[in-house]
Amino acid sequence: MAAWLSEGVIREVAGGIAPYVLRTPTLKWPVPALCSELDCELFVKLELMQRTGSFKARGAINTLQKMRRSGASALPGVTAFSAGNHAIATAYAAAMLDTQAKVVMPRSANAFRVERCRAYGAEIVFGETIADLMAIVERLQTQEGLALIHPFEGEGTVQGTATVGLELCEDVGELDAVIVPVGGGGLISGVAAAVKALQPGCRVIGVEPGGASGMSDSLAQGNPLASVSVQTIADSLGAPMHLPRTYELVQRHVDQMVTVSDDALRDGMRQLFADLKLAVEPACAAALAALKGPLAGQLSGQRVALIACGSNIDLQTWSEHVAASTP
Amino acid sequence: MAAWLSEGVIREVAGGIAPYVLRTPTLKWPVPALCSELDCELFVKLELMQRTGSFKARGAINTLQKMRRSGASALPGVTAFSAGNHAIATAYAAAMLDTQAKVVMPRSANAFRVERCRAYGAEIVFGETIADLMAIVERLQTQEGLALIHPFEGEGTVQGTATVGLELCEDVGELDAVIVPVGGGGLISGVAAAVKALQPGCRVIGVEPGGASGMSDSLAQGNPLASVSVQTIADSLGAPMHLPRTYELVQRHVDQMVTVSDDALRDGMRQLFADLKLAVEPACAAALAALKGPLAGQLSGQRVALIACGSNIDLQTWSEHVAASTP
Repeated sequence: MAAWLSEGVIREVAGGIAPYVLRTPTLKWPVPALCSELDCELFVKLELMQRTGSFKARGAINTLQKMRRSGASALPGVTAFSAGNHAIATAYAAAMLDTQAKVVMPRSANAFRVERCRAYGAEIVFGETIADLMAIVERLQTQEGLALIHPFEGEGTVQGTATVGLELCEDVGELDAVIVPVGGGGLISGVAAAVKALQPGCRVIGVEPGGASGMSDSLAQGNPLASVSVQTIADSLGAPMHLPRTYELVQRHVDQMVTVSDDALRDGMRQLFADLKLAVEPACAAALAALKGPLAGQLSGQRVALIACGSNIDLQTWSEHVAASTP
Repeated sequence: MAAWLSEGVIREVAGGIAPYVLRTPTLKWPVPALCSELDCELFVKLELMQRTGSFKARGAINTLQKMRRSGASALPGVTAFSAGNHAIATAYAAAMLDTQAKVVMPRSANAFRVERCRAYGAEIVFGETIADLMAIVERLQTQEGLALIHPFEGEGTVQGTATVGLELCEDVGELDAVIVPVGGGGLISGVAAAVKALQPGCRVIGVEPGGASGMSDSLAQGNPLASVSVQTIADSLGAPMHLPRTYELVQRHVDQMVTVSDDALRDGMRQLFADLKLAVEPACAAALAALKGPLAGQLSGQRVALIACGSNIDLQTWSEHVAASTP
């Protein structure tokens, strides 16, 4: 394991971010029917109840703390590009650590998420295309001296997500498999590193939407794809590109990648409502959808954990997705 | 404290029911805005993620275990009357402990809850009026020899709910106040007994819907009302009568009772969705509604816990309530 992602460093990061993030609970699945159907002992880490509504708070806080420690005390502020959860986390981190945030979001971003960013005091800059967003972020870095908090590729980001894996291993004990939603790959990179350090025998399985399978495609091709087409309701899992650090961590630590359809995501959303009373965005249902779909039968008799990675969704959008699901 | 509800007995009950119920997590409220607005450190016990979807599983399991221990090994089965959560819990307890359940429900009971009972293998007997339900239950006891698991008044029921208070005190540390929804009074009787045993300085506050304020009215009158009018969207908090054991426990241990309107419950439901991604039935939002309403300003600077007591609600009903709320 790289020195910057050793178990010791992960524990240190967990301590550092603790004042600003929650140790989210891991729950045993309360409804016996699903566990019988799947023949596994099932746990779910409720990371959607994290501050800012997703795991992204961990990486954003850690990255900003690292910047501060490395002497950037005169930092005029931070920037980030994101359709939502990372933007909210960046806004939150800036507010907590007393600096300014300008977050760059696509004009198509969900209004609920934009509002969440504003509530933490961030300034929002809208762009149209991906190229557009990247150009704005570059300008904010070079002209305004803002520091970029990368949504998935930064060391600080991955160290932050590794604390999700650390907590899971500590709270649940020996696991046979953990299933993690994959967008850019920041979450699974950190989780897999922590899990493999603490429980080398536990399989780490990544899940992408069929319409945003950039990581699976990158692995098949043998290098991170610079451009990925995205067509899925799981807007938080639609990374437009992949990058070397997270790609290599996935290649090294992740045992299996699977994909799920949008319909399977909607079905997972419905089941999370029925069994856990959760109303979540599509990305947050991905691990359950994978377990019920492509992984069905593969994990018989095993102890399996799902990461409910985060959720920021408005009532209207949630209701439409669930209404469109087939009960 | 009565011997049957001492701290030692509560701990023993917690151990006994442990194979069949979950130790539900208590979460720090993740959104700073509400905590700032209310000026308190806020926790919520996610008892709605309990097996069967509510705290009722604890009392039902404990009661049935007690019956078994007291020699009723030839018990032909159990019965209960309930509009939902207690019926589901009774069905579950019977399934877990290998006996039959015939649960008596009003014909107006939510179809989702009826289905949940059936899924655990219970037979459902429908009645119309309260008198009707009681008559059926009496017949099932006398003619078929079924044992009644009372929704709130039984010793076993209250011992079960006391374990909610025990876990809360152990998991959160010193609290200044805990806010508990009140229907029949079974939950708050047990929670208050445990909290006062473990943290005598912690205030216990009960909350009823304005349209089902039978416990408040009983306290005002000085004895448990034999008949209570019920008019509220919080169908799980509409007990048709109050009874001596739970009434006296409330009188002894509960510091304050407040009421909330149906609109306040709907607003609480909306906020639980926005802040915790939870889609809950009205009763489950009662503690939050009380904190934001009648208790606003009373708990400044304090550490406060809410009990999210349970939820079994269908999508349609939930959506209608939240759509009718004023954001």
